Amino acid sequence: MNVAVDAMGGDHAPEWVVQGALDAAVELGIHVTLVGHEKKIAEALNGRPMGGRISLHHCEAVVGMEETPLKALRKKKDASILVAFDLVKTGRADAVVSAGNSGATLAAAVMTLGRINGVDRPAIAGIFPTDRGPIVLIDVGANVDCRPSHLLQFGVMANAFASSCLGIKDPTVGLLSIGEEEGKGNEQVRLATELFVRSDLNFVGNVEGRDILSGKVKIIVCDGFVGNVVLKFTEGTVAAMGQVIERELRASFLGRAALMLGRNAIYKFIRKLDYEEHGGAPLLGINGVGMICHGGSSPKAIKNAIHIAVQYVNHRVLERMTLQLQNSKVCQGD
Amino acid sequence: MNVAVDAMGGDHAPEWVVQGALDAAVELGIHVTLVGHEKKIAEALNGRPMGGRISLHHCEAVVGMEETPLKALRKKKDASILVAFDLVKTGRADAVVSAGNSGATLAAAVMTLGRINGVDRPAIAGIFPTDRGPIVLIDVGANVDCRPSHLLQFGVMANAFASSCLGIKDPTVGLLSIGEEEGKGNEQVRLATELFVRSDLNFVGNVEGRDILSGKVKIIVCDGFVGNVVLKFTEGTVAAMGQVIERELRASFLGRAALMLGRNAIYKFIRKLDYEEHGGAPLLGINGVGMICHGGSSPKAIKNAIHIAVQYVNHRVLERMTLQLQNSKVCQGD
Repeated sequence: MNVAVDAMGGDHAPEWVVQGALDAAVELGIHVTLVGHEKKIAEALNGRPMGGRISLHHCEAVVGMEETPLKALRKKKDASILVAFDLVKTGRADAVVSAGNSGATLAAAVMTLGRINGVDRPAIAGIFPTDRGPIVLIDVGANVDCRPSHLLQFGVMANAFASSCLGIKDPTVGLLSIGEEEGKGNEQVRLATELFVRSDLNFVGNVEGRDILSGKVKIIVCDGFVGNVVLKFTEGTVAAMGQVIERELRASFLGRAALMLGRNAIYKFIRKLDYEEHGGAPLLGINGVGMICHGGSSPKAIKNAIHIAVQYVNHRVLERMTLQLQNSKVCQGD
Repeated sequence: MNVAVDAMGGDHAPEWVVQGALDAAVELGIHVTLVGHEKKIAEALNGRPMGGRISLHHCEAVVGMEETPLKALRKKKDASILVAFDLVKTGRADAVVSAGNSGATLAAAVMTLGRINGVDRPAIAGIFPTDRGPIVLIDVGANVDCRPSHLLQFGVMANAFASSCLGIKDPTVGLLSIGEEEGKGNEQVRLATELFVRSDLNFVGNVEGRDILSGKVKIIVCDGFVGNVVLKFTEGTVAAMGQVIERELRASFLGRAALMLGRNAIYKFIRKLDYEEHGGAPLLGINGVGMICHGGSSPKAIKNAIHIAVQYVNHRVLERMTLQLQNSKVCQGD
């Protein structure tokens, strides 16, 4: 098992990315290829030996976080994210993990590896922790305008992923809408409902925004516009929450005492929802394995993302997904 | 000033609604008409005198929380929500406040009062508390499929409301999207951006989900599908947050001590985000004043909603809105 890590991608690259990769190699017992600028990676290693489990694949360029993905990829053929996916294409790596420009990661994956049979649009699966275990929200940003058949494909792909990598048996699937009753929601949801009802998925109907974090429904399907708003809103809420709770507590003597005693417990929930602590989001539907991580990913997040990538490969999710797409009679190109 | 309160609408009606109405009449020095079933309201009053500021308008029927709005309104001509809006239409009340079936409240408002000039679609304005003061998210559920011109109308309406009732001078307006750069987002957002740029609004461009609770942008415009998902997601997060923080704290001795000392401060943020504590959402674009409250509204929420309705009337928001819609050259029927 060899995971290609885009060492140059992310707000704290290459330092934190390299650290996460080193940790993953040791803890998971796998091989990691650091893709990026030799000199900068050497600096990030800061004299630490790479050991037998780490190798370095030099490339000159990197797509910046603010660059326009397609434009940057056309200009920089030697960009670390393109080179990383090429390692997978040519059989030299099994998966790619990147905390870089997520649009560029998505585009590089599709350009290099293509889509699997039966998929019109690859999608990004956000993993949200809940009290009842993790749930998948799909799509969290790859596709802003979706057809009903795309939503069904998202559901089938997430089903293959969640049932193997997250160990959820026959996961429940819901369509994100604004009322639980069938017939509520927008045109897109109403048409998609008909497709889901006829599918082999364990479809439970419409779910509302309030159900996302309840964990009752394991896979929640929506278009990438709505999903991305929810993902980013979670980030914003988490940030606001920590600040306000801490400030309120600091404002009184009893509060300061409470903060001293209970800080860990109070922050546990906040950390739990924090995207940075939870590895990455798998890119479902590409003909290979790719993980998109938050730009601000901590070493732990990078390590966790590599762990999911390893499970993705080990559980043969790609094969399962292809099979399920065939069996689900998912109509393409409607 | 007389506010018609739908005494029969809400999960805790008529008890909590009546309580909130009584409190509002005393604290705000206004007149309140309780619309609903005489006998049930008398039971809720439980022997308390109504006093000179409260009157009762009897009607037999009520639209249940789970009923299909239009069907129920056609069948029940004597429903409390229809009667309440009729009091406004006939000049016997200045505003309506209801915690009942929100679809029915919206439909009854439009059927009875109609829309103001220049508005294709009335919208529900959600008021979110933030560290930098309240912000408005519009629409939070009235319109699932919107044209770009509808979004612009939402912005103009919210501008009239926020600048007068919330006291925000020349409020900043943003379009909810999935990237801050112009040109990002879906087709709807891209087309709406062109309209907003040409308008008189203090338009600051696209904002992301993470910006909603930061309070930097005072009016955030989106379609009712996305807005409702965000509103309900907030509810769900608040519920999950309280449970998890409390459980984590209870799990250790220090945590229990912290909980004892800091409970108020910890719950302050949770309460702050709690829809039930924050009155209602104004229905903008109808030819009159209407407030939609959460079904589970507490007496305090009902009182606060009545307060906003009073401000809406006092600040002549309807006239301002009509004028601003005319001046903004908001194209209708595109």
